Amino acid sequence: MRIGIIGSVGHWFYALNELPRHTVVGIAPGFAGEGMVAVINQLKTKGIEPPVLEDWRALLGEVDLIIVNTRFDLNAGITAEFLRRDVYVFAEKPLAITLEQLDILEAAQKDSKAFVTAMFGIRGEPWFVTVREAVKGLGEVRLLNGQKSYRMGNRPDYYRRMETFGGIIPWVAIHAIDWVHVLAGADFTAVRGLSNADFNNGHGEMDVTSLCQFEMEGGILASVSADFMRPMSSPTHDDDRVRVVCTEGVVEYMKGKVTVIDKDGERELPMLPAEDVFEQMLRRISGENVGVSPEDSFYITRVALMARDDAMK
Amino acid sequence: MRIGIIGSVGHWFYALNELPRHTVVGIAPGFAGEGMVAVINQLKTKGIEPPVLEDWRALLGEVDLIIVNTRFDLNAGITAEFLRRDVYVFAEKPLAITLEQLDILEAAQKDSKAFVTAMFGIRGEPWFVTVREAVKGLGEVRLLNGQKSYRMGNRPDYYRRMETFGGIIPWVAIHAIDWVHVLAGADFTAVRGLSNADFNNGHGEMDVTSLCQFEMEGGILASVSADFMRPMSSPTHDDDRVRVVCTEGVVEYMKGKVTVIDKDGERELPMLPAEDVFEQMLRRISGENVGVSPEDSFYITRVALMARDDAMK
Repeated sequence: MRIGIIGSVGHWFYALNELPRHTVVGIAPGFAGEGMVAVINQLKTKGIEPPVLEDWRALLGEVDLIIVNTRFDLNAGITAEFLRRDVYVFAEKPLAITLEQLDILEAAQKDSKAFVTAMFGIRGEPWFVTVREAVKGLGEVRLLNGQKSYRMGNRPDYYRRMETFGGIIPWVAIHAIDWVHVLAGADFTAVRGLSNADFNNGHGEMDVTSLCQFEMEGGILASVSADFMRPMSSPTHDDDRVRVVCTEGVVEYMKGKVTVIDKDGERELPMLPAEDVFEQMLRRISGENVGVSPEDSFYITRVALMARDDAMK
Repeated sequence: MRIGIIGSVGHWFYALNELPRHTVVGIAPGFAGEGMVAVINQLKTKGIEPPVLEDWRALLGEVDLIIVNTRFDLNAGITAEFLRRDVYVFAEKPLAITLEQLDILEAAQKDSKAFVTAMFGIRGEPWFVTVREAVKGLGEVRLLNGQKSYRMGNRPDYYRRMETFGGIIPWVAIHAIDWVHVLAGADFTAVRGLSNADFNNGHGEMDVTSLCQFEMEGGILASVSADFMRPMSSPTHDDDRVRVVCTEGVVEYMKGKVTVIDKDGERELPMLPAEDVFEQMLRRISGENVGVSPEDSFYITRVALMARDDAMK
């Protein structure tokens, strides 16, 4: 496939393993001044040295698949442009940072012969695959608690305005919203969010703490806590966790370990192999029902934006 | 002091260490058929063998302090009777299971020379004391996540009707609501609750999963997850947890350990000594400002009932 990359500030590198099997026809910043050096250098390690274009629009007629991960407020518009030309899009989550943007994008998706896949890359991590498979043996899912905690560090200017950032719920909590959706195998019936931007180390409007609370089909309950308050001295950048309470046991991931308690007692589970969400997208293009569906990409973005909007009320 | 005990189904034993220094003038069931054998036997281990009365009303004029821990729906009325006679009450939490009951009780408190202390006994556990003291060195509290998870087992009939049980939020989640209130040192400004009674192993209306979400003064956020779904094969009855995210570090309790991450890195904290909440109540009677205040007892009960009422909507 002819593939292009727009932007550098997201998770384009999920595609890195597969790119050598395809033709990277060009890369471009999503906005003036977006540094592309990290992308150039990482591609070079795979022997890929594509032209670096000034304007992403130059890629519009040239690609079969585009990887979009630029500034949060720009991803939706760029994604829509490519969908309208029947180009597949591997797009940073959230697909949009307002419900209005998302509606426009969904209309573009409807009319397209291609589709968009959101970068819910954590779905492919060994721990998530392990939890996902363990849940299948534990009866009915009843309660889920997800956690994302990141170091704040010093983030670029566009994090400082909600208009360009979108908020910690669509940017960070969204991963855990996706997890609980996958693990529960159920849709959301009620969505509540809270967030706060105090003590954000001079990051303007950027919210740094958040909570979401969900009622799901079948009376399943789910909570998500997401924050940028992880101490800089922490051993890892993130502190992802999930706990899934089922009728026949509890499985959870935390600090590199998946543990389960069921009728056989408490034990650590061996990690299953990673899955490659970009490779899964390519298989989906070939007709397999695998990986992150476009429906999930839209749905999880929508739920995250609803929670964010509730938090901003 | 002349002390009496009404009921056996709660945490009267928080008083056990102090009782030998006082006179236990009598014990009585709170309702016909409430078994008092466990109380009789445990008191005997301390050399205390009080008369066992048939009707708790016989204690009304006979005590300076009464310990009330009978059926959830009866505690409020009994507590009010003693407050009206200026008798101190060490009462099971929640103080009441409806806001109407609580309003009546609060009126009785207002007119009383004595006061009621709710049995927030976990405040005295070494882990809670350790977390409480650690928080003081970590700057501003910004986000708290509390968890209570219990084994369900087979519970008495009065758990099976909300009218006599009150719900998992006022019975179980209330502890974690108290923790986040103490640890944040802030009041609640918004209260949300969810709960569900499915898959409760034939326990009628008893809800077995719940989530609460709070906005607090100063923009502090707090979540509480409480369930009765802990597998019977678990190594302990409960899986209490709390995580306190502060501007200068994160402290948490889980599985018997308190850990902190701050500028000096991640480490386990040595446990501080336990505190005795009943002994603190006795000191409060002597005029010291220590332990669980009557204000907190009412306030936390009220917040829990508000969350429960929100969940029942």
